[in-house]
Amino acid sequence: MIAPPFSTPIQSELQEVEALLHCQAYDAHPDLCAALDHLLSSGGKRIRPTLGLLCGKMLGAPHDRLITLAAAVELLHTATLVHDDLIDGALLRRGIPTLNAQWSPPATVLTGDFLFARAAKLAAETNHLALMKLFADTLATIVNGELTQLFQARGLASRENYYQRIYAKTASLIEMTARAAAMISPVEETVVETMRQFGYEVGMAFQMVDDVLDFTGEQAEVGKPVGSDLLQGLITLPTLYYLESHPEDPDLKMLLEGDDPPDRMQMERLVQSIRASRAIAQALDEARQSIERALTCLETMPASAEREALQVLARYIVDRKL
Amino acid sequence: MIAPPFSTPIQSELQEVEALLHCQAYDAHPDLCAALDHLLSSGGKRIRPTLGLLCGKMLGAPHDRLITLAAAVELLHTATLVHDDLIDGALLRRGIPTLNAQWSPPATVLTGDFLFARAAKLAAETNHLALMKLFADTLATIVNGELTQLFQARGLASRENYYQRIYAKTASLIEMTARAAAMISPVEETVVETMRQFGYEVGMAFQMVDDVLDFTGEQAEVGKPVGSDLLQGLITLPTLYYLESHPEDPDLKMLLEGDDPPDRMQMERLVQSIRASRAIAQALDEARQSIERALTCLETMPASAEREALQVLARYIVDRKL
Repeated sequence: MIAPPFSTPIQSELQEVEALLHCQAYDAHPDLCAALDHLLSSGGKRIRPTLGLLCGKMLGAPHDRLITLAAAVELLHTATLVHDDLIDGALLRRGIPTLNAQWSPPATVLTGDFLFARAAKLAAETNHLALMKLFADTLATIVNGELTQLFQARGLASRENYYQRIYAKTASLIEMTARAAAMISPVEETVVETMRQFGYEVGMAFQMVDDVLDFTGEQAEVGKPVGSDLLQGLITLPTLYYLESHPEDPDLKMLLEGDDPPDRMQMERLVQSIRASRAIAQALDEARQSIERALTCLETMPASAEREALQVLARYIVDRKL
Repeated sequence: MIAPPFSTPIQSELQEVEALLHCQAYDAHPDLCAALDHLLSSGGKRIRPTLGLLCGKMLGAPHDRLITLAAAVELLHTATLVHDDLIDGALLRRGIPTLNAQWSPPATVLTGDFLFARAAKLAAETNHLALMKLFADTLATIVNGELTQLFQARGLASRENYYQRIYAKTASLIEMTARAAAMISPVEETVVETMRQFGYEVGMAFQMVDDVLDFTGEQAEVGKPVGSDLLQGLITLPTLYYLESHPEDPDLKMLLEGDDPPDRMQMERLVQSIRASRAIAQALDEARQSIERALTCLETMPASAEREALQVLARYIVDRKL
């Protein structure tokens, strides 16, 4: 776990979350304990618990409930990653072997299930029924999004579809985290709604930037080939902007309309064209606008070290390189 | 769904549960809806919701909460079956194609996850926090049991291990169902504990009888070869009894101690020896003793049509042929 500047006000809370996460399999099969340790040590930046802890502490959430909530969110996220990596056949995540690279598919399916069970238990331990329902709904949203993507034809160039997809994939859980942190705090319903919107905007921006980095990142940094989404036929924000300004690009037309899909060379040429175009800056700008709306939400919140850290975190989302 | 005599007092409730189950994917991807319909139409006997409804109605549980609980339990059960069948590579369940026989593994993993999410949502909608936690704990128990079995060496002849395994696999969820139905009812804690024990005994007996039927059932009826557990090296109750009375059986010694595992012919001979021995009757008798203890638990409950139906259901567990 790295300790970026935005986590300063909640250092000790983050450590408590970490300890709570690591003890989730203490009574389970030893190999399952080892798997959980491996998963938790895989270099996640703990963006979600950090954001949840900052929101909750800013709003006066009870300490124990907040720690439990932050751990529940990270565990749910971890569980979805375990099944994701299995589905994608990914062998590395953040440069570290995935569980399914080392375990059999059955063991990987069950480990994900076990983490779902523990995440649900932690969510229940916040003793907040509305939060429990929100938690279950968010999991359904994430999974339904993955299934929809699985069934969908590749090469679908639709903004509406793109926003739905990144909401399900990323924004829904970050939105839930900020909203839930407010729900367990002694605040009005309007504050809960503002924090939900803050989480939504941060989450949407987070995935938009991820999609930009897929084009601009160095292969060694992101651990996959440049333009890997597009190479798999997945249309993300940079490609949508590129399509607007270059509707006649023959490689793109071939991808979207052609009966013959483009070959590898044509696809790599398309990736390079998008990298060299204004589409990258336009996509980043759209993410930045989301973050501006998120910062506006924060303005109405109590001035505090946590609010400042949330501002830093929100800006970090669009300025990060990884 | 069949309508055995023990479901008479809760026919309309069972239909409500059925309707609630079928609408769980109404807002999800159409293929997911279709998958859920397929799963729900696969001929399950709805033993768990029937048992939960009878327990709850006997004890005066509020109607809506009880329906929700019964649906949550059946959906959790269905979700675990989806992942189980994937893990086992089973192509048929109850003579009907499993989801993984028709879908890709990724779609099957995600469908199971979606059902977990919806089961958790239903559990939360009972508006009972302790029940939520119990629900999450039970899922962890089931999954940990499956993982333990996955990692375990085959041919382990230990009663303690056997009881732990069938508790995790089957009894834990049936125990939870009876306990949860009492928890949402206006009854004392001692009644909850007695109903928990009732569920435990019924659940343990249910799996013991399943393990007997694996030896005695006709291949066409159970949809798998006679003695399929043992053929896969899994030691169940009939084999444990047979080991006590025939410690020198050379095929069994070879299975438990041998460096060379028995060949198919030797294994099939062992299955036949067990079928022909007293071990079958002894295992059935042990299940019957569990049911007797379950019936004793019921004696302290209010006399009612539901109590009578629960008695019939308990006896059906050991008398069934499938």
